[in-house]
Amino acid sequence: MARTYLIAQGGGPTAVINQTLVGAVLEARKRDPKAKVLGARYGVRGIAAGDLIDLSAVGEADLMRIARTPSSALGSTRDKPDAEYCERILAGLAKASADAFIYIGGNDTAGTLEILDRAAKGSMTFVHAPKTVDNDLVENDHTPGFPSAALFVAQTFLSVDFDVRSLPGVYVGVVMGRNAGFLTASAAAWRRQENDGPHLVYVPETPFSVEKLIADVSAVRERFGRCVVAMSEGVASEDGTPLAAKLSGRVEKDPHGNVVLSGGNLGVALQERLTRDLPKARVRVDTFGYPQRAFIGAVNPLDSQEAFEVGKQAIAASWTGSHSIAITVTSGKTAMKLVPLASVAAKTRLMPAEFFDASANQITPAGMAYFARLLPARPDVAAPFV
Amino acid sequence: MARTYLIAQGGGPTAVINQTLVGAVLEARKRDPKAKVLGARYGVRGIAAGDLIDLSAVGEADLMRIARTPSSALGSTRDKPDAEYCERILAGLAKASADAFIYIGGNDTAGTLEILDRAAKGSMTFVHAPKTVDNDLVENDHTPGFPSAALFVAQTFLSVDFDVRSLPGVYVGVVMGRNAGFLTASAAAWRRQENDGPHLVYVPETPFSVEKLIADVSAVRERFGRCVVAMSEGVASEDGTPLAAKLSGRVEKDPHGNVVLSGGNLGVALQERLTRDLPKARVRVDTFGYPQRAFIGAVNPLDSQEAFEVGKQAIAASWTGSHSIAITVTSGKTAMKLVPLASVAAKTRLMPAEFFDASANQITPAGMAYFARLLPARPDVAAPFV
Repeated sequence: MARTYLIAQGGGPTAVINQTLVGAVLEARKRDPKAKVLGARYGVRGIAAGDLIDLSAVGEADLMRIARTPSSALGSTRDKPDAEYCERILAGLAKASADAFIYIGGNDTAGTLEILDRAAKGSMTFVHAPKTVDNDLVENDHTPGFPSAALFVAQTFLSVDFDVRSLPGVYVGVVMGRNAGFLTASAAAWRRQENDGPHLVYVPETPFSVEKLIADVSAVRERFGRCVVAMSEGVASEDGTPLAAKLSGRVEKDPHGNVVLSGGNLGVALQERLTRDLPKARVRVDTFGYPQRAFIGAVNPLDSQEAFEVGKQAIAASWTGSHSIAITVTSGKTAMKLVPLASVAAKTRLMPAEFFDASANQITPAGMAYFARLLPARPDVAAPFV
Repeated sequence: MARTYLIAQGGGPTAVINQTLVGAVLEARKRDPKAKVLGARYGVRGIAAGDLIDLSAVGEADLMRIARTPSSALGSTRDKPDAEYCERILAGLAKASADAFIYIGGNDTAGTLEILDRAAKGSMTFVHAPKTVDNDLVENDHTPGFPSAALFVAQTFLSVDFDVRSLPGVYVGVVMGRNAGFLTASAAAWRRQENDGPHLVYVPETPFSVEKLIADVSAVRERFGRCVVAMSEGVASEDGTPLAAKLSGRVEKDPHGNVVLSGGNLGVALQERLTRDLPKARVRVDTFGYPQRAFIGAVNPLDSQEAFEVGKQAIAASWTGSHSIAITVTSGKTAMKLVPLASVAAKTRLMPAEFFDASANQITPAGMAYFARLLPARPDVAAPFV
């Protein structure tokens, strides 16, 4: 009898998450033209509610348009299911006669799958297809979604550095990233000279102090006449207090217990502090927000191709049990491997220490090599006069 | 004897302002290989200080790299010269033996040129080469820099609308634009259906009230389950008070007397207000900031070509007196015309009333036709499931 696959998308969107969806649908169809592929609207919420779409009925041309559309075409959710919610999801999967559930998402999504897999007791398989702009999944060299978000951030800092060259001042760009500094660090991926911005990079892996920031910025301004800073929204002091909470005096949490760092509050508080402490400088702080995670103008071809491949692999993996798919790179060769759901679930991969020189607030040559491998070549541009 | 041209760049940068610079240099060289072309660093500040670069000595390959580099390669300034400063500029121009001064900038730049032209009493010519992402120069159909900034804004809203479809809520994107709503309105350029964001557009030309915003957003949410808003940073109440000043309780001004609207303060204040008044909605406000004015990933080919042509025309115009160059479109045909400096100086072109339906907070078909003419085709993407 033909198999039934159920697919859903969880967590924040990326520029290429639909490549994974479409890669899975086309692979399922290729393996068996009679296979049934259902999509759940808004993640596990759609499974519990029986809000399903028959993806088997969608033509290939329409699927290819969906593949190149940024953000989750099926809709997403940040729900973190408790035991009772898991029961409803399992009932929904049973009702749909699903043989395999493929859930595209980050470490919280893998965590949800692990709980479901334990509860299902082998009656079906659960496959985690990775995606996250934060690049923070263990077992992975990098994760689908990150190379596109990193491209947006690299383009942004190349652009704003030219801007701040032309009208000198202090510029801080606040980049997404709760615990892992990969996305913030990609701001420096296209730096070529000492004088190129971002001159200072602050990631969550290194304890942060505003006093140190002010001193660092002053030193760079003295040297280059301007200072461009890439700062993660997740930077925290030695005792672990996020700067956002410290400056704004309040802490909001999402259903997964993560501190909500979004919104421009951190940026505004930083702008006030820098303006006060650097009275002679023109200070500007921008918080890049949503555009950085799924920007249609910064879809990285490598990322599209890998995300599509992850979808294909998810179908293949579903035949051999429950797994998480991981992207590995060994001796320059990219491959996909299968790892247990538990090895990825709810764990956070931080940026390796060898990628970052905390004393210089800058990426090391090893870090530069990593980002160069994931990003297109730097555009052939130059600012020779200022 | 060979002529000497002096070129400078004023005001905020754009993605294509260096196309104009390089268009002028190459045209001067083409007309007379012995012509001398000097560039002033940081606008009129460099002329007064004698801080000049010999652009005649720069090779064509290097010039073409500079042309495709965003932001002002010579550096820029927001100085508004008084009588004494004008004397120093004229002395600098005389010392450089300049026959013509070509200043690339917006209406403040044209104003500076008009003052210089009056003071110089016919001893040399002054040409204003237009650029502004605000698109607010009178006499022009559109201005170099705007079609690229508009492309960034259109890409951003297409992207965030897909994002907010996948995780429904209320999203407000705050767009640059002090008095003219063109850039904010371009957020809607790629809308195709009622359900497409931005669902609401707020421009400075129409009096704004927070109470009306809350009511508008609630109605859209009820209808579509989400609401995406494009808001100009310059929206103001009936009595002319900018919303930024009203919400933050303070007013900063730049040297030209313009209220400084930058920074995320407006966004943060808006987010607090919307969160309070729409307690059931997930609210997110992003302020796009600097990336929108000179983003290397959103250089519009039409804009590059027109900006280059403006530079060429500036050299030609300098032989027949002092002028501002304006881009006109008549019966679908684009042309450049020469107008007096005084007709552009310090005037602001607002978005034509026929482009905007204030009762619907949306662009009219006439407005859509205008933006369609300036932007590339909408990417072939689709969000069919949510």
